[in-house]
Amino acid sequence: DLADEDYQLGEFPDFMRKEMAEQPEAVRRALRGRLDTRFATARLGGLRLDPRDLRAVRRVKFLGCGTAYYAGQVGANLVEELARIPADAEPASEFRYRNPVVDPDTLYVAISQSGETLDTLAAVQELKRKGGNVIGAVNVVGSAVARECGSGVFLHAGPEVSVASTKAYTNMAVSFAMLALWLGRVRDLSAHHGTRLVTAMQQLPEQIASILETDYEVAAIARKYAHAKHMFFIGRVRGWPVAREGAQKLKEISYVHAEAYQAAELKHGPLALIDAEMPSVVVVPQDELLAKNIGTIEQIKARGGPVIVVTNADLPDGLADAVLRVPRNEPELDPILLTIPLQMLAYHVASALGRDIDKPRNLAKSVTVE
Amino acid sequence: DLADEDYQLGEFPDFMRKEMAEQPEAVRRALRGRLDTRFATARLGGLRLDPRDLRAVRRVKFLGCGTAYYAGQVGANLVEELARIPADAEPASEFRYRNPVVDPDTLYVAISQSGETLDTLAAVQELKRKGGNVIGAVNVVGSAVARECGSGVFLHAGPEVSVASTKAYTNMAVSFAMLALWLGRVRDLSAHHGTRLVTAMQQLPEQIASILETDYEVAAIARKYAHAKHMFFIGRVRGWPVAREGAQKLKEISYVHAEAYQAAELKHGPLALIDAEMPSVVVVPQDELLAKNIGTIEQIKARGGPVIVVTNADLPDGLADAVLRVPRNEPELDPILLTIPLQMLAYHVASALGRDIDKPRNLAKSVTVE
Repeated sequence: DLADEDYQLGEFPDFMRKEMAEQPEAVRRALRGRLDTRFATARLGGLRLDPRDLRAVRRVKFLGCGTAYYAGQVGANLVEELARIPADAEPASEFRYRNPVVDPDTLYVAISQSGETLDTLAAVQELKRKGGNVIGAVNVVGSAVARECGSGVFLHAGPEVSVASTKAYTNMAVSFAMLALWLGRVRDLSAHHGTRLVTAMQQLPEQIASILETDYEVAAIARKYAHAKHMFFIGRVRGWPVAREGAQKLKEISYVHAEAYQAAELKHGPLALIDAEMPSVVVVPQDELLAKNIGTIEQIKARGGPVIVVTNADLPDGLADAVLRVPRNEPELDPILLTIPLQMLAYHVASALGRDIDKPRNLAKSVTVE
Repeated sequence: DLADEDYQLGEFPDFMRKEMAEQPEAVRRALRGRLDTRFATARLGGLRLDPRDLRAVRRVKFLGCGTAYYAGQVGANLVEELARIPADAEPASEFRYRNPVVDPDTLYVAISQSGETLDTLAAVQELKRKGGNVIGAVNVVGSAVARECGSGVFLHAGPEVSVASTKAYTNMAVSFAMLALWLGRVRDLSAHHGTRLVTAMQQLPEQIASILETDYEVAAIARKYAHAKHMFFIGRVRGWPVAREGAQKLKEISYVHAEAYQAAELKHGPLALIDAEMPSVVVVPQDELLAKNIGTIEQIKARGGPVIVVTNADLPDGLADAVLRVPRNEPELDPILLTIPLQMLAYHVASALGRDIDKPRNLAKSVTVE
């Protein structure tokens, strides 16, 4: 169902904007036919795993490069949280080069929008050689990673042209939420909890659409901070991969030196850099760490640093200098929604700085070289 | 054997410089009585683990904050490389807050110079509550982490006063090399390989002393690049925690925005930032990834970025704009030696910028708050 119009800009000034706008529909495609309301679970048929296979998984490791790696961190958090299986993410390049211990009881997930990313493909080949159980998470049917893995989850994001990934990232995160739910529901996750998550996932497309409607407010905030030479992106736990992806997005298309940091690590170095010229974007989900995140904001403010928050929580008036707001959903899905305004922020900063948004200098869409 | 003179500056202008200079002696203390040349192994008596306990360890996870976390990454690499046990490192704060799956067959290592770091202490308490097997790696005898863990490895670095850790970091890395050797030698690491590593560890104090003698050259390079507002620190595999610790050191005492990046991840975003104003420090060990690292340097140079390398390899003339050189040893120990010139670089950049080196703004030596 992918037509020529996927490669036409239409009403949009560039592909990044078009692809951000396509996210509600892309998420709908990712969810279609994969949610099972009757048994309160998800099913990813392309993985070709039956319940006994799923029970045999003792760890999950996500491998990818750049944005795909950060999506893998979202996935690892979800798997550990919903299925109580230890999970982590690692850059595919580090994995392939370090002679990793390959464990036959680990499910490896190789993530690549294009399916042609060389480091990810090499990691898959290393895994296959060592008898690892590896599945792909790719957007392009018939791509090298898809073929090499044999089984996997297709992202159904539709063609992505802009170098900066948006809808593919979101569909990776949504797909991993389904994987985590599925792994959880063959273990100890209750039907009640599963139903909450299925319902929550069904709400994502409309919620993403509502975030995209805040474009005018995000653009105003972006213009206000576009002059900054540096920014920190701060998050913890569920907010940490969001901060990383937000920093990555800003860095790649605006060339602002954005760096992501875990909130509690600030005190161990980066706080020394905070001053009026160094804005921080703080990711504040409405979860059990809200008070800690408010404390982090106060620490930054006490050193004179401007603070932009991206949040679905009710924060005290005047706490932050600017607020990017997203709707509430189940807390486990917060990372998916909280990332959207950071895509928009990066877009509008780059736009204010007059960058070539779809083709940032020095970068390629698919990194098929070492 | 710690006398009052440990708290006196003596001939030194500040504690950071004094503590860097003390590293050869500190490493000698860390090694003393722990290397076993007859059986080509190490023994850390404070761990109270017998060979059967050591064999029962199926994973190792290092937990710490800031510099201690990066030392844990060095440790994780060493354990996976020498003992072929999967190992990783995680910020203690993230671990404590994310309701982690605690696995009874994992050895957890809680790292804290002061032994009073609140996030690390909280992670230890969480582990104890969940029946985790946790040991401490602390420098201060009788500290909270040491008492809570009950068993562990003392770092023997002597009192560290400067906020920026140097000798404690180095002794953490050396201690984890001994732990990795010990875990390796109860498994498949040969006596021959063990002997090579024991001999290599014995050489470290003199090699560190020889690096410290290059102070004049490092200072000249530091003055040349001290005006930079940003720097990247690039490494891969063994060089990755070195890059992270190098960036951390520069950031905390000079307030230069230094960010560490995995070499292969550069193509997925950061390359867009490279220009003549953004120097990169590239960590280049003489190992099987040398050609890849040379490729990385060439990519940075092609975009006009200045390159400082820290290396023990013979690089083509003119490849880098400046070279920080360390002696060769066994490749597994490269991270220990390669970090020393980056401490010196940070010191001299901060010095050229007139910073208060021992007491950087906004930072405390022991982070005993959340």
